[in-house]
This record gives sequence, C-alpha cells and structure tokens, in this order.
Amino acid sequence: MLSKNTLKFIKSLQHKKFRKQENAFFVEGSKNVTELLDSDFEITYLLYTEKFETEYRNLLRGFKGEAFLVTQKVLESAGSFQSNDSALAVAKIKVNDPPQISKSELMLALDDVRDPGNLGTIIRIADWYGIKHIICSEESADIYNPKVLNSSMGSFTRVNVYYTDLYTYLPTLNLPIYGAFLGGKDIHQQNLKSTGVILMGNESNGISDRIAELVTERLTIPRFGHAESLNVAIATAIICDNFKRS
Amino acid sequence: MLSKNTLKFIKSLQHKKFRKQENAFFVEGSKNVTELLDSDFEITYLLYTEKFETEYRNLLRGFKGEAFLVTQKVLESAGSFQSNDSALAVAKIKVNDPPQISKSELMLALDDVRDPGNLGTIIRIADWYGIKHIICSEESADIYNPKVLNSSMGSFTRVNVYYTDLYTYLPTLNLPIYGAFLGGKDIHQQNLKSTGVILMGNESNGISDRIAELVTERLTIPRFGHAESLNVAIATAIICDNFKRS
Repeated sequence: MLSKNTLKFIKSLQHKKFRKQENAFFVEGSKNVTELLDSDFEITYLLYTEKFETEYRNLLRGFKGEAFLVTQKVLESAGSFQSNDSALAVAKIKVNDPPQISKSELMLALDDVRDPGNLGTIIRIADWYGIKHIICSEESADIYNPKVLNSSMGSFTRVNVYYTDLYTYLPTLNLPIYGAFLGGKDIHQQNLKSTGVILMGNESNGISDRIAELVTERLTIPRFGHAESLNVAIATAIICDNFKRS
Repeated sequence: MLSKNTLKFIKSLQHKKFRKQENAFFVEGSKNVTELLDSDFEITYLLYTEKFETEYRNLLRGFKGEAFLVTQKVLESAGSFQSNDSALAVAKIKVNDPPQISKSELMLALDDVRDPGNLGTIIRIADWYGIKHIICSEESADIYNPKVLNSSMGSFTRVNVYYTDLYTYLPTLNLPIYGAFLGGKDIHQQNLKSTGVILMGNESNGISDRIAELVTERLTIPRFGHAESLNVAIATAIICDNFKRS
C-alpha cells in the first residue's frame, strides 16, 4: 500500500530543492507517463488508476518498480495537476554530463529561458525537428519542473538537456552559432545549413551581451505586421523550421 | 476616489458571464494598457500606480475616461495578475460584426481552440505576420478572457477576432481553405500564395470532421524527429511563416 511518507515524498518533488536532494522527479498524465515507461529513465514509483490499468495493461506488465493502484483523488493530491485520472511516475534524475556533439548536427542553446512552459514547448519543438541536444544556461528553467515536463508532452525522454555556463562551453564546440536578434539578417533570405547552434535568449531581455559575443551570425524572423516581438518558443519553432527546410 | 463597487465591478469581469452582461473587459500591465490607450477601444476606467504615471505621463494626459491613482495592492486586488505595479484599464467590448475580408488577404480560422494562452499567442503571431482577421468557432476561447489578452501582448488591439459558425461562414468567403493535418502535403514543398484561410484545429482533436469538409488543401509541417504533434500556436506560427516567405 502507498504510505503517507511516499505521498509526502512525491509532493516534495514539486520543489527544485527536494528534487536535487532526492535526485528524483515525477511526471503526470498518460502521455508523459507512457513515454517515461518507454524510455531508459529509471522509474521508482508508479501510481495509476483503474482507467490507466485498462488502457495500458501491457506497459504495466513490464514494469519493474513499485506500482500502486490508486484513486483519482490520491493522484491529484500527490501531483500538480488539478485533474488527473490516469497516472503519475517517479524517476531518477539523469547525470548532467556534457553531451557528445557531432560536427554535423543542429542543436539549441538557451540563454536564460526562465518560463517552464516555454522550455517544455521548446523541448517538444526540438523533438519534432530531430534536434537531440539543448544546452541551457544555469539560470534557465529546470527540466524536471513539473510544468516543463508537462508541456514537453513526453519529448523530454528523447531530447538531452544539459546545463552549463554557455560562455565557456559554446566555444569548445567549434560550431557556427546563430543568434536570434531583432535586426539580424532576414532568415528567409539565408541559405541555412542544418549544422550548428541556434541560440535563443531570455523572455524579456533576449540574448545577454556576454553571450552575444559568441554569436557568429545574427538572424531575424522578418516581420510583416506590428507585434513588437514573438514569444521565445514561437521564434525557436520558426527558426528550426527555416533551418530544416533547406 | 475609486469606490468599492467599481473594484467589485472590475473583478467580476474575470468571468465571461459578467463581461457579456456589462459589455466590458479589462487588461493589465503596462504593455497591454499602453497599447489599449493607443487604440480605438473606448476605455472607461484606468487604474495606475505612481510608477506608471512617471513613465507614461503623456499618454495619461490625453486620456478622457475616469482615471484613478492607486497602490500596487489595489491593482492586484482588482485584476488577475499576482503582481502588478503598473496599470489596469477597463474598456467596452467591440461589436462582433462580420469583418470586411479582401479577396487577396491571408487570414486565420480557429476551429475550437480552447486554451486562452494559445489564442492570445496566435493573435500575437497574426499581428507579427500582418494578418488582420481571425475567425473563431463559437466554442473557441473568449478574446476578452484576461489570459488571452495578456498573452497577446497588446496585439489584440490590431487583430480582429470574429466569432461565428465556421461551417456556414467560411464558404461565403470564396477563398482557398488550407487545413493543418498530420498526413497532408509537405508545406516545405508547396508554392504557397499569401491569400486564403489557414484553418487550425482544437488542441486535442484537431479540425473537426464537419469543418474538415470545407478544406480545399491539406498541409503538414514535415517532422524530422519523434514528437507526436506540435502545440497549435507553434504550428500556426510555422505555417504563417511558410505562407509569408514566398
């Protein structure tokens, strides 16, 4: 049976401090939980409803960790969803090791993207466009924040997110660095190769001056109307699409 | 002085029922309030802090409605923002008249986009790409929902959002209707003209079968990785960019 202490432990993982301390995180909802069950993450606890059991009997059969059949009410008290009649899974955080980057790949770098919804959406976009690595500044939103995981719609299992100091790390890649700025070269007019780093900046301040020094090519999405700017996840998607279309 | 009744009235406008009954809505934050002051919306009340007064003295000078200098605390009690040290404005809802559509314009139609953040973001995207009209099914999120207005970042003042029954309205336009589907024609391979209707569907179910009948061309954003789908606002942005690049 699911103990009060385990419930309390799961709840505590909504906070970064406890995720770090316990080296664990949770995801909620059938999409994220089934993707997690299909991934190489080490899952310790699985809480699921009868509904989830009926729908995903085969997935459950292969599960090695501790599994608990619970009510919707218990699920909602453990997690961050207002409504959850499906499942919640707790897994171990992966080690933040520098990724193996190939010379011919396209990747993303985020200079201080703070909004969890934006980071989650960017992970989903990366997964759509076949981008395997996202390099985040240390102040960026935490990938294991429940809001990030939820808006990634399971894509966090396929995209590597690495946290580091961009200023010292990016030059070691020896790759072109494309920065999104207002006032750069019109992205529709460029002959873009699907290799290098696409660098996106903070929601309010864009790319910081220090990191901007590293940019080898400034790019802009052409504007046809009057909005002052685009949301960072929206701009990331448009830029990825322009890189991949060539 | 700002009365308790006026505060109560403003608060009530968080709910669609009262917005409809009172024919009024509010916006919050300096970006949305200054855009509203610059628009042709009829503003009835303006609540602002000393900070806003210092920054936007000229805008305040030209204002004809009732203006109240208030504390941050009062502002936060009236609106939906957790933190607001700037302003809040109440304005009259515009009449939902059928828009004048030209034969050579590009527009958007939304079949049941329910999430307020998505609708607001789509309005901002439309404004960026110079799209003047968005036609929404009647079940779509309400443009005057504070969350829609906030995520539109002021663009709601420049984009016309019209609510109607898409099934009877869209055919009257006599324009090509491009529908976003998984399994349509690769949008990178099309020679798109910047004329017609881009139709986007509901967050979970996509375009409904009934409305899908009206589509003259099915389009798809090519996928290079493994994400199952893209968020509807993200997909809208990518499609608009593809239409406008040609």
